[in-house]
Amino acid sequence: MSNLTAFLDYVKDNDHQDAFIQRLSDAVAIKSVSGDPSLRSNVQDMVNWFEGQLHDVGVETQQVDLGYQNGADGQPLKVPNAILGRIGSDPKKKTVLVYGHMDVQPADQQDGWNTDPFTLTVDKDAGTMIGRGATDDKGPICAWVNALEAHKAQGLELPVNMRFCFEAMEESGGEGLDELIYTEAAKGDQGYFDNVDCVCISDNYWLNARSPIVTYGLRGIAYFEVTITGPGQDLHSGMWGNVVYEPMTDLVNLMSQLVRNDDHIMIDGAYDGISDPTPDEIAQYKAMDYTLDDLKQAVGGDVALSDDVAELLMGRMRWPSLSLHGIRGASSDDSSATVIPAKVIGKFSLRLVPPQTPEDIEKKVSDYVHNVFKSLDTKSTLTSITMTSGGLPWITDDTDWNYQAADAATKDVYDKTPDHTREGGSIPVVLTFSDALGVSCLLLPVGRGDDGAHSTNEKLDISNYIGGTKLLGTYLYKVAEADVPAKKPAGSNYGRKQRRL
Amino acid sequence: MSNLTAFLDYVKDNDHQDAFIQRLSDAVAIKSVSGDPSLRSNVQDMVNWFEGQLHDVGVETQQVDLGYQNGADGQPLKVPNAILGRIGSDPKKKTVLVYGHMDVQPADQQDGWNTDPFTLTVDKDAGTMIGRGATDDKGPICAWVNALEAHKAQGLELPVNMRFCFEAMEESGGEGLDELIYTEAAKGDQGYFDNVDCVCISDNYWLNARSPIVTYGLRGIAYFEVTITGPGQDLHSGMWGNVVYEPMTDLVNLMSQLVRNDDHIMIDGAYDGISDPTPDEIAQYKAMDYTLDDLKQAVGGDVALSDDVAELLMGRMRWPSLSLHGIRGASSDDSSATVIPAKVIGKFSLRLVPPQTPEDIEKKVSDYVHNVFKSLDTKSTLTSITMTSGGLPWITDDTDWNYQAADAATKDVYDKTPDHTREGGSIPVVLTFSDALGVSCLLLPVGRGDDGAHSTNEKLDISNYIGGTKLLGTYLYKVAEADVPAKKPAGSNYGRKQRRL
Repeated sequence: MSNLTAFLDYVKDNDHQDAFIQRLSDAVAIKSVSGDPSLRSNVQDMVNWFEGQLHDVGVETQQVDLGYQNGADGQPLKVPNAILGRIGSDPKKKTVLVYGHMDVQPADQQDGWNTDPFTLTVDKDAGTMIGRGATDDKGPICAWVNALEAHKAQGLELPVNMRFCFEAMEESGGEGLDELIYTEAAKGDQGYFDNVDCVCISDNYWLNARSPIVTYGLRGIAYFEVTITGPGQDLHSGMWGNVVYEPMTDLVNLMSQLVRNDDHIMIDGAYDGISDPTPDEIAQYKAMDYTLDDLKQAVGGDVALSDDVAELLMGRMRWPSLSLHGIRGASSDDSSATVIPAKVIGKFSLRLVPPQTPEDIEKKVSDYVHNVFKSLDTKSTLTSITMTSGGLPWITDDTDWNYQAADAATKDVYDKTPDHTREGGSIPVVLTFSDALGVSCLLLPVGRGDDGAHSTNEKLDISNYIGGTKLLGTYLYKVAEADVPAKKPAGSNYGRKQRRL
Repeated sequence: MSNLTAFLDYVKDNDHQDAFIQRLSDAVAIKSVSGDPSLRSNVQDMVNWFEGQLHDVGVETQQVDLGYQNGADGQPLKVPNAILGRIGSDPKKKTVLVYGHMDVQPADQQDGWNTDPFTLTVDKDAGTMIGRGATDDKGPICAWVNALEAHKAQGLELPVNMRFCFEAMEESGGEGLDELIYTEAAKGDQGYFDNVDCVCISDNYWLNARSPIVTYGLRGIAYFEVTITGPGQDLHSGMWGNVVYEPMTDLVNLMSQLVRNDDHIMIDGAYDGISDPTPDEIAQYKAMDYTLDDLKQAVGGDVALSDDVAELLMGRMRWPSLSLHGIRGASSDDSSATVIPAKVIGKFSLRLVPPQTPEDIEKKVSDYVHNVFKSLDTKSTLTSITMTSGGLPWITDDTDWNYQAADAATKDVYDKTPDHTREGGSIPVVLTFSDALGVSCLLLPVGRGDDGAHSTNEKLDISNYIGGTKLLGTYLYKVAEADVPAKKPAGSNYGRKQRRL
């Protein structure tokens, strides 16, 4: 019997599956909410617990002190440690680096959870496990541990060397992680990222609830605030309406000229350099397993920009977007306030695709906003147009041996060739790994599109948890078997230093 | 020596002026903030104190129980009593009804007050008295008491019969007052409003800091909320940007089509029936004592819609306006939230002038908004366009004997013929009195345009307080002397039942 077969047999065993579920249950019970300073010690508890899990399955680990961050009260707040780990250093084997995060989004039963969010509620009939972090990202990181346990328990040698990088601040800005990755990468053979051949990250989701995917691209982001001022203080609309220029009128007019409701971005040059999709590319999107019903169910309404699913998928994955998020400084409560706000700040962001960069878009947005504002012919003042944060888009070659390994593993476990997708959002750590290590990076999700990460009643299906354990373990064997070209492929990312959004 | 001369001599006396200031100081010290339920008993203390003041100067008074209102916590909250009063019932004299309010806006020294807002800070060198309510409206109601004291102390007969109506909820919706006025008016000779010939209200301000005015008109209001919905819940802009119609994009587009930044209202028919100003009317506005510098100082910036002062004054007083107040449901904090809001509510209001009515404007706004929304060609939904509150505009004949009396009194006291102005805002109680009693109503302000009512460091100049005492007292004599035509002039208001905004 091959090691792979023995691994899969172990995972198929009911008692082992119960133990896997217990592992996730233990993880969910620790309230590792990184966004709540009062729960910071629970986050560190989660780090300690997870380090123990890794240690028990044979991983050599080290916690890394990431120092302090500025707390809301101005006091320094301890950042929970990250975990670095390694198992195996056989020069004949490839080395796979795995990333995941141990922290979770906030959750309060009063927000609409049907059960206590920090008690994993397992319903074997429904096949679901409900709890905060079940799918994001405690399920996937436990799946890695499950796969290692299956080897350790049976004395099976792993087909590859493995390296681990787990953080506990992903949901709160990834404090300190970029520095850690660059520092560790710079150590070369002396660090935890020695001889890494590829990176595998399981921290996103299938497009739908049916079909596995592999992800090779991410949109970037450029977040803007435009500030318009006028009078020296808020004014009463009775006394001053039809007497003075009102900043809010100018801002609304300006914001109405940023994007059409079909999401055509009106900023000059916004689409510069973005090629139209080739027939092959369109065919690839058309072939993805995604329907209008999937979309309707996900967004809760019949509000799609098109009836053509391929167009919608391209809208999310390979075209930029612009969303108006809100206005600061204007009346936003349920009062009938009759104020003319003196200073209003419009908030909007663009999602970027290659070859767009935040720097280039910043200039284009600034020029355009200044031009439009000039055309308004107002005595209000355009005080500033500022990019408050930006992150590059990322796309890589999805045909290399790393992706072939993921495809083969998926085909083995789910009997489906996975769709290759790009995420509409940003996962900046991918760009950091790609930039720091120069190796192929891959997103290989465990959970489904309907898991409700960040929402109430977040869940992970038992079949995805078990399937994911098989998938991640099988992937290691496919990596081991792969023919790697002499020159390692590098990610085609467009720079480093991202902020997470 | 005439009674008027004796009255004025009394007011000129330094000791008496000190006592007048002490009266206002005592009034300001009572925290009668009607908007703060925790201070409700202080508001009633103020009512009791003020009733004592009236009683001491010879007014027969009665407190009127206005029942309960709904508190924020759903519990019934006692409304402070109103005060009705009378002095004199000589059928040979005219009867003047006076209105004022005893409650004030909230004030907290931390908001930027240089001194404790509830300690009247008197600076005789600067000539100012700083404190919450100094000008709005404790100064003016104390000025009435001062004038009565000057008569009582000297045994002088008043030239008119007087009636009083004071409330303590003006800053919080005027709870219960309309009902009280209509009820009392319906009692005819049996009530406190028996044989009233005219109404005098001192609860507004000079246009500037130099020249007294008399006010004969008010703009009305129509407040709207337009609700646009789309997806079933807020969405992440990374996942759904350029995939779905975004309600915020549609709302901003819609709001940009309501009003131009020169305050031209784009709603079809918005100006129906409003006549262009006659040359005489323009001349009247040109003659008003108001400069561009006055405006710049008042609004804190060079943001006037025009360099022509008459045009600006007409913009405030005799043309409607439309202001965009804000958006509910969108991101309004200082975060970089990347949300696509599922439901957004735009808030805007129009200020109305005769012959506009809230009812008519409601229909025009609704039709227009539906038409514009249709043109947006979106899958978002226009859930509702609702007028949340409305109040009629008001204008009356400013040449009648009541206004002539106010002009004459002002000329006597300030040696200036007052400009006749209209307020840009709404003071609904004026319309209620006008409608309930059918007599001439007049606004005769005590304070200046730079007093900062509702703002930090609210003040009343000592010269205005003493001048105002003289003005209100002298006005009674001018009313007494007036030749009243056989048929009483009625206000040209367009209905009853206003809400205060």
